[in-house]
Amino acid sequence: MASRLPVVHLYTCMAETVQELLHKLCPEMTVKVVGSNFDTLLPSDPTPEHVAALQEAEILLMDPNLMPPLMYQLPRLKWMQSTWAGVDAMFKHLDKTKPLPSYTLTRFGGVFGPAMAEYVISHIVNTERRAHKQWENQAKGLWERSGDIHNYRPLTMLSVGILGVGDIGKEIARCCKTFGMTVWGMVRRELSEDKRSPYVDHYRKFSELSELLQKCDYICNVLPSTAETKGLLNGNILKSCKEKKSVFINVGRGDVISEETIVNAIQSGWISHAILDVFETEPLPTSSLLWKMPQVTITPHVSAVSIPSQVTDMFYENYQRYLKGEELKYVVNLESGY
Amino acid sequence: MASRLPVVHLYTCMAETVQELLHKLCPEMTVKVVGSNFDTLLPSDPTPEHVAALQEAEILLMDPNLMPPLMYQLPRLKWMQSTWAGVDAMFKHLDKTKPLPSYTLTRFGGVFGPAMAEYVISHIVNTERRAHKQWENQAKGLWERSGDIHNYRPLTMLSVGILGVGDIGKEIARCCKTFGMTVWGMVRRELSEDKRSPYVDHYRKFSELSELLQKCDYICNVLPSTAETKGLLNGNILKSCKEKKSVFINVGRGDVISEETIVNAIQSGWISHAILDVFETEPLPTSSLLWKMPQVTITPHVSAVSIPSQVTDMFYENYQRYLKGEELKYVVNLESGY
Repeated sequence: MASRLPVVHLYTCMAETVQELLHKLCPEMTVKVVGSNFDTLLPSDPTPEHVAALQEAEILLMDPNLMPPLMYQLPRLKWMQSTWAGVDAMFKHLDKTKPLPSYTLTRFGGVFGPAMAEYVISHIVNTERRAHKQWENQAKGLWERSGDIHNYRPLTMLSVGILGVGDIGKEIARCCKTFGMTVWGMVRRELSEDKRSPYVDHYRKFSELSELLQKCDYICNVLPSTAETKGLLNGNILKSCKEKKSVFINVGRGDVISEETIVNAIQSGWISHAILDVFETEPLPTSSLLWKMPQVTITPHVSAVSIPSQVTDMFYENYQRYLKGEELKYVVNLESGY
Repeated sequence: MASRLPVVHLYTCMAETVQELLHKLCPEMTVKVVGSNFDTLLPSDPTPEHVAALQEAEILLMDPNLMPPLMYQLPRLKWMQSTWAGVDAMFKHLDKTKPLPSYTLTRFGGVFGPAMAEYVISHIVNTERRAHKQWENQAKGLWERSGDIHNYRPLTMLSVGILGVGDIGKEIARCCKTFGMTVWGMVRRELSEDKRSPYVDHYRKFSELSELLQKCDYICNVLPSTAETKGLLNGNILKSCKEKKSVFINVGRGDVISEETIVNAIQSGWISHAILDVFETEPLPTSSLLWKMPQVTITPHVSAVSIPSQVTDMFYENYQRYLKGEELKYVVNLESGY
């Protein structure tokens, strides 16, 4: 029976670890490491040996940043499992003059939501309670129990607007609701009753974005990068945050807003702070104005990361579905890109 | 009818704000400010005018740190509502040679749980994701996506042991469970099935403390200060944390553990970090070793604070119960002190 299982090819920065973990889960599976130890974010060109090996693959577990030079050269590929939740690193290199690839693409789903929710909640609490100032006080040996350190707003008094309420956004909504926040959700299209989350108090559509921005203390973007979302927050739209002086959090993709727009929104007093995990260009260039702005918190694209054990578990679940001919989980629609 | 309502006396640092808020809720209530603008934590002696005015009071909303010199001089008092959740500032001055005061004492309940849960979750995430180091990196303009900043543990992989699972501890448990943590709870006495929380996976008693310490990545103390809890964590008990190198969080009361014990547990490598909001002596003396230890995070007793609007709402709810002769909420047992 062992010889009948289709070979799994790994082409990812975490290949060795995943290989070990897969072996523990399913010793009879044949796993071939084609390449590993790539940068976790940057693109990388395949060697001729990589290309030759990958051309044999039917099933491929792969980092999507490695896909662009390969995507039209994989004749036998039936299923590619991405190690990332977002697959735009691959999609922006689709050649529109060619037919769409015929293989099934699945993204790493179900895990980024909880990780991003931790990030969002902790950064909101840090902002409200002036965690940064408390650390500065500790360094000075200063017991200061006044101002915002004492008179902070608890989460029950705050509202959050989540831009993009798919599986990740819904999980963030659930955690914000646990803490008693008022939750607004922006969706691209009107949702039918059965697709709505009980943790979202108010749904609004793209066209009603400015109302949502007006009502929320925190604006949290989790939208993927697609033709529809690129530059969505550019221009003067953030002026709607003016009264609440909202805090903008971006854990989605950097190209939803330009750096210039963020800087302008802060300098104009429309938003009071920006918490940024993703950027137009990553790594964020040393020359970026954002680094030095006290109203900006920068994290290096780590709000959620692909943890080998979680990637392995998800891949193995889909692998079993694949063997049984069942529908895979987290299939990407190649037309829309998410 | 207005004249029939019993007068409310305020003797608290937030008296003026509460008076205004009460007036909005119930314009016919007579509210008398006896004293205000006290320090939010330190004791303070009453003037003879204060004493004279308080001796007329039937209902008193008061900071418990102001109570010690007054507690046996209030002949007409029927009900005192504390503005704090913990009332040990008053209890440790009880004179055991005298009978217990005959008035009802209620504490500020139901609100500190959510606030402390925010504190606990954000500090756990900050610790796991090295928030402090990320801020240092930002100050240096450094995009560092390696080590613990990238390979952090998500909350789903972590366990927390909550010492004290009353209304505050249960709320912390609920929030930890929302994020998928494994939750252990230490209770003073065996709990009947109907008093257990669905968010606590494993209950243990005082006598089983070392098992709980062994199993948990985070130990979170929320116990009030009573004769039973004082010094509970002193000595070598934290040695049980050695394998997990647990992180100790204290949002309960400082006297559950001595400063010396904390310093020793860190220097011995039993615990990897301590997140402290409460201390044996507050404000924490400038001479304390804790200020300069990199494995210690200090906050100035602000994990939960008494917010005037919330204190007012709770008081007003109890006031209505008082008028109707119903049982008040959050009554303190004068025998046990909590």
